[in-house]
Amino acid sequence: MQVEITREYIEQVEEAIARQDKGFILSTMADMHPADVITVLYELDTNESKYVMDLLPPEVGAEILSDLDYDIRSDFLSYFTSAEIARYINLMDSDDAVDILNEESVQVREEVIGLLENEEKASYILDLLRYEEDCAGGLMAKELIKVNQNWRVRQCIEEIRRQAEDVERIYTVYVVDNRDVLVGRVSVKALLLSRDDKLVKDISNPDVISIESFRDENEVVSVMRKYDLEAIPVVNVQGRLLGRITIDDVVDVMQEQAELSRQLMTGITENVEEDDSVFRISRSRLPWLIIGMVGGLLAAQFMGLFEADIAVLPAVALFVPLITATGGNVGIQSSSIIIQTLSSNAVIFENFAQRILKLVMVALLNALIISALVFAFTYLFRQELRLAIVVSAALFSVVMVASLMGTVTPMILDKFGINPAVAAGPFITTANDLLGLAIYFGIAHLLYNL
Amino acid sequence: MQVEITREYIEQVEEAIARQDKGFILSTMADMHPADVITVLYELDTNESKYVMDLLPPEVGAEILSDLDYDIRSDFLSYFTSAEIARYINLMDSDDAVDILNEESVQVREEVIGLLENEEKASYILDLLRYEEDCAGGLMAKELIKVNQNWRVRQCIEEIRRQAEDVERIYTVYVVDNRDVLVGRVSVKALLLSRDDKLVKDISNPDVISIESFRDENEVVSVMRKYDLEAIPVVNVQGRLLGRITIDDVVDVMQEQAELSRQLMTGITENVEEDDSVFRISRSRLPWLIIGMVGGLLAAQFMGLFEADIAVLPAVALFVPLITATGGNVGIQSSSIIIQTLSSNAVIFENFAQRILKLVMVALLNALIISALVFAFTYLFRQELRLAIVVSAALFSVVMVASLMGTVTPMILDKFGINPAVAAGPFITTANDLLGLAIYFGIAHLLYNL
Repeated sequence: MQVEITREYIEQVEEAIARQDKGFILSTMADMHPADVITVLYELDTNESKYVMDLLPPEVGAEILSDLDYDIRSDFLSYFTSAEIARYINLMDSDDAVDILNEESVQVREEVIGLLENEEKASYILDLLRYEEDCAGGLMAKELIKVNQNWRVRQCIEEIRRQAEDVERIYTVYVVDNRDVLVGRVSVKALLLSRDDKLVKDISNPDVISIESFRDENEVVSVMRKYDLEAIPVVNVQGRLLGRITIDDVVDVMQEQAELSRQLMTGITENVEEDDSVFRISRSRLPWLIIGMVGGLLAAQFMGLFEADIAVLPAVALFVPLITATGGNVGIQSSSIIIQTLSSNAVIFENFAQRILKLVMVALLNALIISALVFAFTYLFRQELRLAIVVSAALFSVVMVASLMGTVTPMILDKFGINPAVAAGPFITTANDLLGLAIYFGIAHLLYNL
Repeated sequence: MQVEITREYIEQVEEAIARQDKGFILSTMADMHPADVITVLYELDTNESKYVMDLLPPEVGAEILSDLDYDIRSDFLSYFTSAEIARYINLMDSDDAVDILNEESVQVREEVIGLLENEEKASYILDLLRYEEDCAGGLMAKELIKVNQNWRVRQCIEEIRRQAEDVERIYTVYVVDNRDVLVGRVSVKALLLSRDDKLVKDISNPDVISIESFRDENEVVSVMRKYDLEAIPVVNVQGRLLGRITIDDVVDVMQEQAELSRQLMTGITENVEEDDSVFRISRSRLPWLIIGMVGGLLAAQFMGLFEADIAVLPAVALFVPLITATGGNVGIQSSSIIIQTLSSNAVIFENFAQRILKLVMVALLNALIISALVFAFTYLFRQELRLAIVVSAALFSVVMVASLMGTVTPMILDKFGINPAVAAGPFITTANDLLGLAIYFGIAHLLYNL
């Protein structure tokens, strides 16, 4: 990386494109890693990016297309003919090729597949297009190295030489029987360390962790994480070897999940970044702001029922922020803990009743401490016993109810197949605000006989 | 995995331990993956776990210790003698060994190192102990495969056979010069495909991305993610090859970061899981609840200044939840977007003034929409023009101020080296509650001339 990517360099590239100076672009980008070229392309407009892509070698272009953000990619590809796309697809791993083709219209997809020169790649792609994107089959690539268990090491190494042309990273060599059923694995290391005339089955390891093609991507992540795998073979229900998933794809899935759940928890509805447009950022934030606003207006309507009470005893109104804030904080904490359990697939050897009992114990402990403190402070500052009782009793109930809401809502959403992180953000807060106010004014109304 | 890990199986294991039935444990755990054994150990008490560990082969025990949660591990290891620990450390990769030794007292650490039979391992460990845990040097292992650029392929394969005994996964073979400076890389695939008498320098690739030992772990994660690496070589400032970091360690760092930032954002101060004890979960949640409570009490004190106003015009109090909830939502959204930028090390080619301008534009757009809606609803429901003006003007200001707070606070914290995610949760919410109330009552007091 001789060239540092700075604002000045980007400007130089733009000027070079404007005066069609191919030499400058090729000489500065020749040794650049595709990931760095992408950083440059993100700063150019689409026509300029297309100009750069046409100059670069197709192998580099294929890597760039594989790594591009998917929301930018399909827009970018509309500047390419099907023949140009096919030239890049020829050079890609089948999983990346399918990701790209899935973003295109059926027409473009069919055209591109028809134009592929590499027939094996074309058949791989047709095979992979059948799978849902978020299951193991949708994540796998067809490219892998497999050997028959009855071969000798010599024959294996020959076969690996032949297959390896097509496979970027070997990781593990998979061992299959005559019906293509996965029966084991053998490392390149073991092959290197073995005598030429040994049988594969004698040096292979039968303990091979695989995953069925229909499994959900979350399951793929947790199995690969649990067993520290850099690649996992994918099999069908009969155990036949279909493909493999590599760790880089799983890292991407993890990153997407982390971002998605953070966005859901903070009430942002689209995948936005700071350098997106003002309009797009604003739009991603409005839905939850409006839901929060409706909640606030409902709260105002509800408190309006007690307007006469407030006029008589304005002190009651002073503790409204305390009640709503505590309800919100407790609700988010509770949902955070349960969402962590739900998303980690952790085996918890406690039944539903035990879990709820523990939840109630935690809530009880925190509710007692918080409401005792608030009782003391309120009494100290305002010297009104009845007010202190109302506020602390309401707070106690709010902590209990918010804990329950925060835990049970994500569990219910999860049961219905909805991402439970939805419940962790503004939704829980808004619901808890309303519930908390109902409890507070209910108790105040009763205890003051207003 | 013949044995399924169920509650029944755990009970059978406990009974087998009680009656010292080694046969049952060995026969059911013989084919179990170490990660599954860990799931079983988590359900046993420490004495029972120690009993199982003593029965298992030391290679399995070494893998179990490497993968154990660090907060459980140091407690568990207190049941082992230094000689027993040394026996496991002998069989571990140096990075895992150092992680474990770093959790032990200086005395145990020295004893264990003194007892290591594998002298190369001992020297690796002494070398690695010098690095901070959260930098590249602290993540790397010394085990790797390197060859001299002046060797022939034949000599390389011999050398790899020799070195590979010690290295679990090869990934890439690193090429160094006579002074041990990293000059390139060569894949096992390229070695397999090349003629025996070729020189390494003729088949090696000089483009090798490395990282210096003092770099922060976040930098390691972003470089490996950006360039899709499954391993990265670590060098010193002179470029000498020191070790390598593998993707599995980076996945662990990513997971930790994601969990940490989620916990910070939801106001949980310790790394808790649902199956921790009631006391521990409760303790992890109290600090933020108390901070929120203090905020609520301060809000009550502050609103107390306007108690007379509320008595005259109780309708003002009704919109308090709307004001605080909107401030909270806007603040969290803003901080979420800026924290994403700060944590992704994204290159943003906008200067500070441009970024603030964009922030103000987004805030302005959302503030206008929200306050116009609230004006319309308030006027419609209550038919009081002045109240509608007060509420919507306050809301407009709150959205602007909360956006600014939510963006600037994380940036300032980041400047001072504090994890900006701290600012995303209850902290921003509490501060915005107070600010929002001040703005609201200030405007109400002015416009009503109370």
